[in-house]
Amino acid sequence: MTFHIPLAKILEAQNRIAPYTRRTPMLPPPLVHRDIPQRLHLKLENLQVSGSFKARGVFNTLLQLEPDQRARGAVTASGGNHGLALAYAASRLGMPATVYLPGRASEDRVARIARFGAKVIKHGDAWDDANAKALEHADREGVAYVPAFDGHSVVEGQGTLGLEIIDDLPDVDCVLIAVGGGGLIAGVSAAIRQKKPDVTIIGVEPVGAPSMHKSIAAGQRVGMQQVRTIADTLSPKSVSDLTYGVTSQYCDRVHLIDDRQMIQAMRWLWAECNQLVEPAGAAVIAALLDGGIDIGKYHAPVAIICGGNAAAESVFTAYQQAADMMSGIN
Amino acid sequence: MTFHIPLAKILEAQNRIAPYTRRTPMLPPPLVHRDIPQRLHLKLENLQVSGSFKARGVFNTLLQLEPDQRARGAVTASGGNHGLALAYAASRLGMPATVYLPGRASEDRVARIARFGAKVIKHGDAWDDANAKALEHADREGVAYVPAFDGHSVVEGQGTLGLEIIDDLPDVDCVLIAVGGGGLIAGVSAAIRQKKPDVTIIGVEPVGAPSMHKSIAAGQRVGMQQVRTIADTLSPKSVSDLTYGVTSQYCDRVHLIDDRQMIQAMRWLWAECNQLVEPAGAAVIAALLDGGIDIGKYHAPVAIICGGNAAAESVFTAYQQAADMMSGIN
Repeated sequence: MTFHIPLAKILEAQNRIAPYTRRTPMLPPPLVHRDIPQRLHLKLENLQVSGSFKARGVFNTLLQLEPDQRARGAVTASGGNHGLALAYAASRLGMPATVYLPGRASEDRVARIARFGAKVIKHGDAWDDANAKALEHADREGVAYVPAFDGHSVVEGQGTLGLEIIDDLPDVDCVLIAVGGGGLIAGVSAAIRQKKPDVTIIGVEPVGAPSMHKSIAAGQRVGMQQVRTIADTLSPKSVSDLTYGVTSQYCDRVHLIDDRQMIQAMRWLWAECNQLVEPAGAAVIAALLDGGIDIGKYHAPVAIICGGNAAAESVFTAYQQAADMMSGIN
Repeated sequence: MTFHIPLAKILEAQNRIAPYTRRTPMLPPPLVHRDIPQRLHLKLENLQVSGSFKARGVFNTLLQLEPDQRARGAVTASGGNHGLALAYAASRLGMPATVYLPGRASEDRVARIARFGAKVIKHGDAWDDANAKALEHADREGVAYVPAFDGHSVVEGQGTLGLEIIDDLPDVDCVLIAVGGGGLIAGVSAAIRQKKPDVTIIGVEPVGAPSMHKSIAAGQRVGMQQVRTIADTLSPKSVSDLTYGVTSQYCDRVHLIDDRQMIQAMRWLWAECNQLVEPAGAAVIAALLDGGIDIGKYHAPVAIICGGNAAAESVFTAYQQAADMMSGIN
C-alpha cells in the first residue's frame, strides 16, 4: 500500500490555517559558538501558537469539520503538545475539547492544556494507552477524533512548515526533523521533496523510542513493546502506516540520540540563541552535537526546533523570591 | 547643549555590524490570548547574539577602533548584558576584554561572561560604582573603554534596531522601549523619528530606578541616590546627558512599572510565545499588562523584547534529574 500527501493539499492547508497560526521565523546565522557550522539556520517553530508545530495540523483538521461536528467538539490523545494545540484551537474556534494524556504526563502539561478550557483525563502508561481511550470516547460521544499524527489532514497541516522553509531559504539542501509519531517528518518531507527533490531529509528519534528507525530498517512498520525517554512528545510506541509510508519515501536516514544528549542540546540552544525548549525541541541539535551526521557538506542546512513547551516554572519562582527578598530587606 | 544622532550614522552602523549581528525577527500576531491587542508585534531582540541589543552598540564601537587599540583590548562596566556583549564581540574579533560588574551581579551573569574568555571583576553596589573602576582601568592600562550607553557609537549601533522595525513593519505607529541607561531608546527613537516623525515612542522604566522619567519631568538630567529593582540591566543611578538629550527630543512619555509586574510579564511572554526572558526584557509587556498605556488606539504597535538572559539553570537541572531517575528505575 502506498501513501501520498499531494503538494496541492499542503498548499490548501497553508491558506486554511494562515489566519490562525504564525509564520514562524527562521533564525539566521551567526550562532554564538562554532561547534556546529555557522551557516546552520534554525526554524523556530517553538514560536508557533501553543508552542509547537502541532497547531498546524490541528487547525487544518478542525477547520474542515462540518458545523454540527464543530458544535459537538473534539477529542484526542497526546504526549502533551498535540493536546495543547487542540485545546488552544478549540478555544479559538469556540468548540469543546477533551484531551487524554498518559498517566506520567507532567503537571506543567496538564496545567497548560487546562488553561484553554479543555477537559484533561489521564490514562495508562504510554501515549498509545491514552489514545485507545480517546478513540473509545469519540465513538461513544459522537465527537470528532483529531489524530496526533495518523491522519491526512494532520500531516498536510504539518507540511505547511516545509513550504515556509523553502520560501525563506530557497537554497536549503538539508533539513533535520525530530520524529515522534512521524506526522511532522511526513508532512515536511512531502512538501520539500515534491518541490525540491534533492534536499536531504534526516530524521532524529530518541534511542528509547525508535519506531521509525526500526521500521525503515525492517522495510515495514515496527512497534515497540516499551518506550523510555524524557522526550514525552517523541514517545509513541509506534509510528503509523501513513507516517511510515510517506517518510520511508522521502527520508534519507533516521539518527538516534539519547536523553543526555537532548539535555545537552537544550543547554546549547539556550546559550546560543536564548531559546528554552523541551527535550523534543532540542533533539535535532543533539544529533548535530553528536557528530554522527556530517552536516559540514551542506550549504544551507536547517534544523527544525519543533516545540518549546519546557517546564519553566522554577525560573519564575526564583525571580519572585529575589524580588520578595529585595523588597523585604530594604 | 543639544545632542543629535544623525540617521546617516545609524545607516553606517547597520552596514558595519551586519556581518557580526543578527537581523532579529519580528514575531507577528496572533498572540495566544487577548489581554493585549492581537495586532501587537514583538521585536525579539532577545534572539540577538549574546542575548540582547547590546551587541549592536558594542560591535559598532569595537569595529571603529584603530588596529593598535584593538590589540590592547577593551574594558567596560555592565549590569550584565553589555558586559556579555563586549565579551562576545571581543572573542569574535580576537581582542582581550575586561568587564566590571556590580557586586550583586548573579553567578549566571558572571559565568556567561567568563565563558567568552573575558576577565570579570566585581566592584561596588550599583553599576555606577563598577563603572568608575572601569574608567580608572582604561586610563591606567591604556585600553579602550566601551561605554554601556553614554557614547555616540553605542547609541548609533542600538539605532540599527529601529531601522529594522521600520523595514519589517512600515506602518508602525507606536514603539515601546525599556529604559536603563537610555542607549536603546535614544538610538531607536532617533532612527525611527527621523524616518517617521509621527511614531509614538513610549519608554518603560522600573519604578525603583526612574532616572529618565525624573529627568524628563525635571527638564534636565536627574540622578538617583539609590536604585532598587530586580531588573539589573535597567538600574544605573542615572542616564547620561547624551541619552537624556536625545530621548527627551523624541520620547512621548516614560511609563513606570515595578518588579512584580515584570515577573508577571515574564510569565506572560512564556505562555504567549515560549520566550523566556530576563525582567528587563519583559518590562515593555509589564507596561501593557498594567493598562496604564492606551495601546488600543495604535494600528501597528511594536514592543521591543530587549534582552533574554534569564537565569535558567534550574530548568536544565530538573530535566537532568528526571532523566537520571528514568534511567535508574528502569
